[in-house]
Amino acid sequence: MRPSGRAADQLRPMKITRNFTKHAEGSVLIECGDTKVICTASVVPGVPRFLKGKGQGWITAEYGMLPRSTHSRMDREAARGKQGGRTVEIQRLIGRSLRAAIDLKKLGENTITIDCDVIQADGGTRTASITGGFVALADAVKTLVEAKKIKENPIVTQIAAISVGVYKGVPVLDLDYPEDSNAETDMNVIMNDKGGFIEIQVTAEGAAFGDEHMLGMLAVARKGIAEIIELQRQALFSEAK
Amino acid sequence: MRPSGRAADQLRPMKITRNFTKHAEGSVLIECGDTKVICTASVVPGVPRFLKGKGQGWITAEYGMLPRSTHSRMDREAARGKQGGRTVEIQRLIGRSLRAAIDLKKLGENTITIDCDVIQADGGTRTASITGGFVALADAVKTLVEAKKIKENPIVTQIAAISVGVYKGVPVLDLDYPEDSNAETDMNVIMNDKGGFIEIQVTAEGAAFGDEHMLGMLAVARKGIAEIIELQRQALFSEAK
Amino acid sequence: MRPSGRAADQLRPMKITRNFTKHAEGSVLIECGDTKVICTASVVPGVPRFLKGKGQGWITAEYGMLPRSTHSRMDREAARGKQGGRTVEIQRLIGRSLRAAIDLKKLGENTITIDCDVIQADGGTRTASITGGFVALADAVKTLVEAKKIKENPIVTQIAAISVGVYKGVPVLDLDYPEDSNAETDMNVIMNDKGGFIEIQVTAEGAAFGDEHMLGMLAVARKGIAEIIELQRQALFSEAK
Amino acid sequence: MRPSGRAADQLRPMKITRNFTKHAEGSVLIECGDTKVICTASVVPGVPRFLKGKGQGWITAEYGMLPRSTHSRMDREAARGKQGGRTVEIQRLIGRSLRAAIDLKKLGENTITIDCDVIQADGGTRTASITGGFVALADAVKTLVEAKKIKENPIVTQIAAISVGVYKGVPVLDLDYPEDSNAETDMNVIMNDKGGFIEIQVTAEGAAFGDEHMLGMLAVARKGIAEIIELQRQALFSEAK
Amino acid sequence: MRPSGRAADQLRPMKITRNFTKHAEGSVLIECGDTKVICTASVVPGVPRFLKGKGQGWITAEYGMLPRSTHSRMDREAARGKQGGRTVEIQRLIGRSLRAAIDLKKLGENTITIDCDVIQADGGTRTASITGGFVALADAVKTLVEAKKIKENPIVTQIAAISVGVYKGVPVLDLDYPEDSNAETDMNVIMNDKGGFIEIQVTAEGAAFGDEHMLGMLAVARKGIAEIIELQRQALFSEAK
Amino acid sequence: MRPSGRAADQLRPMKITRNFTKHAEGSVLIECGDTKVICTASVVPGVPRFLKGKGQGWITAEYGMLPRSTHSRMDREAARGKQGGRTVEIQRLIGRSLRAAIDLKKLGENTITIDCDVIQADGGTRTASITGGFVALADAVKTLVEAKKIKENPIVTQIAAISVGVYKGVPVLDLDYPEDSNAETDMNVIMNDKGGFIEIQVTAEGAAFGDEHMLGMLAVARKGIAEIIELQRQALFSEAK
Repeated sequence: MRPSGRAADQLRPMKITRNFTKHAEGSVLIECGDTKVICTASVVPGVPRFLKGKGQGWITAEYGMLPRSTHSRMDREAARGKQGGRTVEIQRLIGRSLRAAIDLKKLGENTITIDCDVIQADGGTRTASITGGFVALADAVKTLVEAKKIKENPIVTQIAAISVGVYKGVPVLDLDYPEDSNAETDMNVIMNDKGGFIEIQVTAEGAAFGDEHMLGMLAVARKGIAEIIELQRQALFSEAK
Repeated sequence: MRPSGRAADQLRPMKITRNFTKHAEGSVLIECGDTKVICTASVVPGVPRFLKGKGQGWITAEYGMLPRSTHSRMDREAARGKQGGRTVEIQRLIGRSLRAAIDLKKLGENTITIDCDVIQADGGTRTASITGGFVALADAVKTLVEAKKIKENPIVTQIAAISVGVYKGVPVLDLDYPEDSNAETDMNVIMNDKGGFIEIQVTAEGAAFGDEHMLGMLAVARKGIAEIIELQRQALFSEAK
Repeated sequence: MRPSGRAADQLRPMKITRNFTKHAEGSVLIECGDTKVICTASVVPGVPRFLKGKGQGWITAEYGMLPRSTHSRMDREAARGKQGGRTVEIQRLIGRSLRAAIDLKKLGENTITIDCDVIQADGGTRTASITGGFVALADAVKTLVEAKKIKENPIVTQIAAISVGVYKGVPVLDLDYPEDSNAETDMNVIMNDKGGFIEIQVTAEGAAFGDEHMLGMLAVARKGIAEIIELQRQALFSEAK
Repeated sequence: MRPSGRAADQLRPMKITRNFTKHAEGSVLIECGDTKVICTASVVPGVPRFLKGKGQGWITAEYGMLPRSTHSRMDREAARGKQGGRTVEIQRLIGRSLRAAIDLKKLGENTITIDCDVIQADGGTRTASITGGFVALADAVKTLVEAKKIKENPIVTQIAAISVGVYKGVPVLDLDYPEDSNAETDMNVIMNDKGGFIEIQVTAEGAAFGDEHMLGMLAVARKGIAEIIELQRQALFSEAK
Repeated sequence: MRPSGRAADQLRPMKITRNFTKHAEGSVLIECGDTKVICTASVVPGVPRFLKGKGQGWITAEYGMLPRSTHSRMDREAARGKQGGRTVEIQRLIGRSLRAAIDLKKLGENTITIDCDVIQADGGTRTASITGGFVALADAVKTLVEAKKIKENPIVTQIAAISVGVYKGVPVLDLDYPEDSNAETDMNVIMNDKGGFIEIQVTAEGAAFGDEHMLGMLAVARKGIAEIIELQRQALFSEAK
Repeated sequence: MRPSGRAADQLRPMKITRNFTKHAEGSVLIECGDTKVICTASVVPGVPRFLKGKGQGWITAEYGMLPRSTHSRMDREAARGKQGGRTVEIQRLIGRSLRAAIDLKKLGENTITIDCDVIQADGGTRTASITGGFVALADAVKTLVEAKKIKENPIVTQIAAISVGVYKGVPVLDLDYPEDSNAETDMNVIMNDKGGFIEIQVTAEGAAFGDEHMLGMLAVARKGIAEIIELQRQALFSEAK
């Protein structure tokens, strides 16, 4: 029934490749079906002005799509001279979500920037960015610990994200582009590794939705997140960096 | 227990003043406690390029805060030369929400812009903008019908919004600033007049939240929205424009 | 003979409401007929870089119009990414005019920003901004004196402004929009409470003008300013802030 | 008594060189003492969008200073990415003033842009721009007439400008930089060749000013403008272009 | 003697992967040692305004680096709101070079945009962009021919590029970052498949250089380009797209 | 055979006027035939952030064209809000070239900005800017030496530049606009006073070029540069500043 033939609660194949590029403290290629995002985590000593002297660190995120990551070429935001509204909205969501993974006090006065650059888009780029961004963040944090720049690992929980939706009346997991553009409702769920919610955004794409769809979507999301948390764990415990 | 002394499921006094300014097709001052937003709806014939020739209309929204609507003065976005990320995020939410009120086909090739300008902020400016924006939109649409520029009233449902949160462990309705800045979880709910959800955004401000808080917040939101829908109705049926 | 039926030297009804919003050190709603402007004065310790270490303060102004304060909706300057030429010209005039009210040495190293936001426009927004801005400035200065942050009140004079013009060959006071768009000559006059001129700008809108019109306009301006100075005084001496 | 030793009502030596550069339809170097401005007039068929189909032309102006035209180097506006407030204010004044020279109906659907670029500044750059810009405009208009693109010469009057001020209590003509930075009052006067005023801007630089100074400044301005009108005439009637 | 142990005239391993992403008409990953660039070619019907109605097509290029493609994180150009000078310089070079590959008349009124996005940088990103960009361009052109949108293949020659330099007094081929940052002279050479030069840019990084170094660099460049032309050919003739 | 009737290796008349404007530490008008550029050198104590504390100075350049320096009026870059790609490319070339003239250590922590503003363009504006910019730089450096702000003259060599090209199959020196727009190949050569190359940029404008044209162009360039070096010397040794 789904265009991809997947079961309603079935994830697309997800692959997390660490150390994808060589310069960043954390660098991950995350592939969720045909969606591919490079997530790098860059550590810089110091914090933004509004945090100066508060004895804590900061996590921030930036998001971009290569102009031809999508079906038709989009304008390059650097050439247009500003980031679009969707970009801004997404990078704020990634930053908020990943800050929930960290005890900022234990991070010390360091800033970690998560860059999420979509090289191929097929739905779910923002949730892939959060899931992959967490792994890059974990690797970057490890370099700080190993270099003894911070005493304790500041990560307090894993963070993972997935999109779900109502497609032809049925709650389905991990929308690809053909589903995403036809779904009646679209939900992005960000959770931690204890099953707690960090952020939920649900939008009716046509008709309003009710409690039963809400609960149905949350159920498939919960199942999907559990699998993703496990995939992150496997990636992080695979052969050391 | 709440700083304002309100009951957990009690709205702040809400006042909707129509025809607040004289030029706009729809002009509303909405006051939710100390939060005050001017919402105007402006009708222009024609549609944006991406809708040309599709035989439908468009609803869009812009949001701004007067520099000193807040406790400390913020930079004027026009002077800085760009809208901040929060502004962009909010105006996209207002636009999406209000488009759910309208059958865009019946609107014809007209564009209605909803401008929401906060003159005093005390929490809940984005939900006040949606609630007040709907009333301005309804007035603007009425001018089109009365001028016989469109045949049928394209409004399909009322749209209203409210913020809820978990404050000291308890789900509470309609956060003011002192609560908003201390809430554990913050939720914005947009609903129609049939009790259907249009959009929900929930963010954990510290610890993650679970299903029980989610359900508790939705319950108080549902109660609040029902009251707001009624207030909108009274405002719209009060002495004709 | 005037569209409004006023006498040639008659002001529109002017109303000055202090403490219009709650956060600003000075907050005034000024209404001149249908022209309505919110003027707030915000105090921040410190001065711009070019005044560092000179032992004096600074007064600056910013001006904006809500997009639908006018007959047709204007683009939002924050969304366009820059302030228009008219806006820049006006806010520079407001700043210059209000600096004449103050002994900047006595202000100490404090900066006061006057934000003038037009919520409804019907001619004369720049002069209303100056007149209302002075009252907001006076209130803001009082908070500094009362908090003993400065020793002496630095206000040296009241500042008020009015537009005048030649309409159908006759010098008239306080142009509203229908007159403004048909006047042969348009003059903005800024004066202090001793009858001294601070700034005068006169523009021929069609034919050039001569000395007699110049003197005629100055005479009605002088009369109008005297009345406005008195209205400011009443507003400021009304029940204490 | 004046730093330059000039009499109170004495202009600096003014030199107008036509055909200063070779590409523009009108190109003038104007020198007022050490102030040097290149004024070019460029003709382009067509009018801005807001004038389409109204059967008239348009005159607009742009102003710039070379970064080291002044005592200290200023930032290049093109590199900073925006024109400063002073620049915007000045180019709007030049445009308004020169439009008074022309019957826009007779200009047909043509746009003439006056570019005023200051290569050396010593006070009075905006008035020099207007005076020189008029001569460039006259030359550009002549090319349209000679090419028979318009039937009738649309120039209805000469336009000239000068700065005057009160310096050590005395009204003086044509301020150079040392006077300009010490004057008590600063006035820019734009007039036509019949002695009519086009625009007057007067600013108190310290104390307010009264009628007597106003009249004194206008008197010296009137004398100066008469001389400048004659200098423009000589320049324009000198050996044909 | 070279940090990499390569011979003076030895290229780094170069790998060209076609069809790297799925949406673009041409999509290539080019790897030159540790330098990795994604080059996509996007076809859009129509031409820029300045070519309208001339019966020809256009090739243009844009270049970007992911923020952490380099050793330290660079600011994201989209967030800063403008492309840096180096970016602009490089994308103009890529565009000029690739236009030499095509008979623009035979391309018809189509525009092909070559996007070159560096995901990992280790010297030579601009020449890798040109070499990889040509392959992407060839693939994109083939889709036009196969879809019978143009009659004839407009490609007139292969285009390839390489950097050379003088390192410790010796002309060397294909500088990696450690050499690039220490070279005395730095040259980028763009050639066609007949051994003709398309563009050469040489810069002395310290002392000036003479004819002998110039000729030495051109000789190693010529050898390297011949090898790259062959690698492009193999890539293009490998299993059909 | 050349449109101007010049011999293939003949420069246009070149005139270098020092002290062209009065404020800058170095100010030169360079005229190469009808190409006219004002080059000023401005000294400011201090260095950009990336050089702080390294005990050296910096040379940078900015380039601009007056809007009507060209045949048709170009948009003013300050009004458009950004510098075009060609401008950026040229000012980076000027800066790199002139830094080769100076021992930056001996310059001390001073920054010299070379502003090159084209007032009339007829081909070769970038090379004229470098040639004239060097003379302005030399004058500015002299003011530092004479004011004893630096001990030793940091100039290590003269720098001069010229354009050459292949026109109707023949290498020609110093292209004017009619040649430039028809040349088959276009080369800009920057050299020092010992005949060493600083930078060479060659671009095929149509067909590729081979070694013989390359060598032919370099030969005429070398001859031209020798003459220009001599003209710079004469200008600098003419009556003291």
